[in-house]
Amino acid sequence: MTIKTIIWKNNAVVLIDQNALPLAEKYITCKSYKEVIACIKDLTVRGAPAIGVAAAMGAALGALNLPSLSQDKFRQKFLTICDEIAQARPTARNLFWALERMKKVSDETKTNSQRHLVKELIHEARLICSDDIAINRQMGKHGSVLLADGDNILTHCNAGALATAGYGTALGVIRAAHEQGKKLHVYVDETRPVLQGARLTAWELKKEKIPHTLITDNMAGFLMQQGRIDKIIVGADRIAANGDTANKIGTYSLAVLAKEHGIPFYIAAPLSTIDVSLKTGARIPIEERNAGEVTNFKGVRSAPEGTKVYNPAFDITPARLISAIITEKGISRKPFRASITHCTKE
Amino acid sequence: MTIKTIIWKNNAVVLIDQNALPLAEKYITCKSYKEVIACIKDLTVRGAPAIGVAAAMGAALGALNLPSLSQDKFRQKFLTICDEIAQARPTARNLFWALERMKKVSDETKTNSQRHLVKELIHEARLICSDDIAINRQMGKHGSVLLADGDNILTHCNAGALATAGYGTALGVIRAAHEQGKKLHVYVDETRPVLQGARLTAWELKKEKIPHTLITDNMAGFLMQQGRIDKIIVGADRIAANGDTANKIGTYSLAVLAKEHGIPFYIAAPLSTIDVSLKTGARIPIEERNAGEVTNFKGVRSAPEGTKVYNPAFDITPARLISAIITEKGISRKPFRASITHCTKE
Repeated sequence: MTIKTIIWKNNAVVLIDQNALPLAEKYITCKSYKEVIACIKDLTVRGAPAIGVAAAMGAALGALNLPSLSQDKFRQKFLTICDEIAQARPTARNLFWALERMKKVSDETKTNSQRHLVKELIHEARLICSDDIAINRQMGKHGSVLLADGDNILTHCNAGALATAGYGTALGVIRAAHEQGKKLHVYVDETRPVLQGARLTAWELKKEKIPHTLITDNMAGFLMQQGRIDKIIVGADRIAANGDTANKIGTYSLAVLAKEHGIPFYIAAPLSTIDVSLKTGARIPIEERNAGEVTNFKGVRSAPEGTKVYNPAFDITPARLISAIITEKGISRKPFRASITHCTKE
Repeated sequence: MTIKTIIWKNNAVVLIDQNALPLAEKYITCKSYKEVIACIKDLTVRGAPAIGVAAAMGAALGALNLPSLSQDKFRQKFLTICDEIAQARPTARNLFWALERMKKVSDETKTNSQRHLVKELIHEARLICSDDIAINRQMGKHGSVLLADGDNILTHCNAGALATAGYGTALGVIRAAHEQGKKLHVYVDETRPVLQGARLTAWELKKEKIPHTLITDNMAGFLMQQGRIDKIIVGADRIAANGDTANKIGTYSLAVLAKEHGIPFYIAAPLSTIDVSLKTGARIPIEERNAGEVTNFKGVRSAPEGTKVYNPAFDITPARLISAIITEKGISRKPFRASITHCTKE
């Protein structure tokens, strides 16, 4: 089964509408980079690697739609577009990484033809997209050795095909093990407030016919206490040089609970998620989103009018609580700094 | 401010409809014990002490509505009614405790008059109700010494006036400290799946003008990591003789997180919540509720059709993770067995 999260088609960016899932499977066509920004902001497209691909394609779209300009003016305008896209969301590293790749193409392509440069930018965006799927398959291959036949695996949020260009990071590892014939059962945290687990992960697992059970986030500890979870695997939005990992809010709590119960806790993420400029996770910016996500449940209000809310979208799991980080290069164990430095230098 | 959770009025049981809160403040009048059972089952009335009061009043209502019978037949029918009410929900100890009190009145009242016995039963049910408020105020008085001016307190679910006949257990302690002029700020876990925190605790705190901030359950760990929680206080549905405590699902995870961060973790519950017949929490029956609570919120579906769900309504927090248990008799510290044996014998 192939889920097409994001594609470049007829000089437009076509995204599966993740806000409409699982009730409706519909697609949104962005014809301008501003529409792509809006889709990143409102979570039509979400998941760190998918945001990266969307950003790159958005930048390509911005370039494509520029009028004919002098070469300097064009490159300058393109940088402005990239900077604007970079403001869409603050935490996921892949957004900035993808834009860096696009800016590099703009800076380094030797041509006097705007048309040619735009073509190269579109090519780069599509490459980031196809690379992502290949990377996820590699990650799946490496990570699948960590999962054993009969395992009960807990995952949080959606780190699946929908969070990437396809196949997924954490769910990619589960997919790969499933493809190898391992019998797995997945516990899916619903993942409040945006319910990516209930809405998206359950939808993907249903499509894949991988057995799964939905729980609310606060049930995970009780399951661990009962010995019903063998392994935990999640994605990442940004990983610092020492392995500290920003991921969907609730990840940190799961990691503490995993430690308490002696359960392996794995992160699966492409190298593009790693931010070597940050020594530790302490300075990873944590996005705070609007109160309505918490006071409402898909448009139905739960809390009294005017209730004050704190709504951080991510938290930081310290490296000491992470058993291994799975990337396209293999499985990295503690201390992560050495292998992270090694892999990101290549 | 007085919230009337449950009252006996004109030979009927009047309950605030907790499913309608916070959007509407309306009351439901039960004229038969079967209507009371339905209200306990569908969470119109919930919270261990409130369930106890509702059960007692339901039993009184059942007695009141019996036709004129021989004394033996009446007492036999009354026991059957009590047994039927006891089936309404399995975890909260107070339900069984309240029915035991009612059965004792039926067994031990020396009278030949059915009318007199019914009067005594109604009196006992109303006494259980008024006792509960007095007990909660005692608990508040004892527990408030644990809260300091300026504290940030985390609570889970609703252990407030709505969970009791009035005033509350965990929220009663917060109320008492607030009445003493201590400046407190309360973080409110929304408490999926039924959202008692968002719907009920936020509503009570708003009425009391106690500053509070709503979070999703999976944010609590991140707040603790940031040093933003000074103390955690929750209620209980059943406490075993060693202090192991059944409470709303998610409580166990909070207790593990509290230990990780060195944060005091308090339980506030009346002695009627203690089940000395159970040596440990291992045999406390944990209710599993319907899948719809997890896959839907007020009729809005989040998960794909047919998604399998696990929905335990409670979990067990081992005594080792509990800093103190606050009852109407005072503050009990570890090992709890000694003080529990002492208090429940008196």
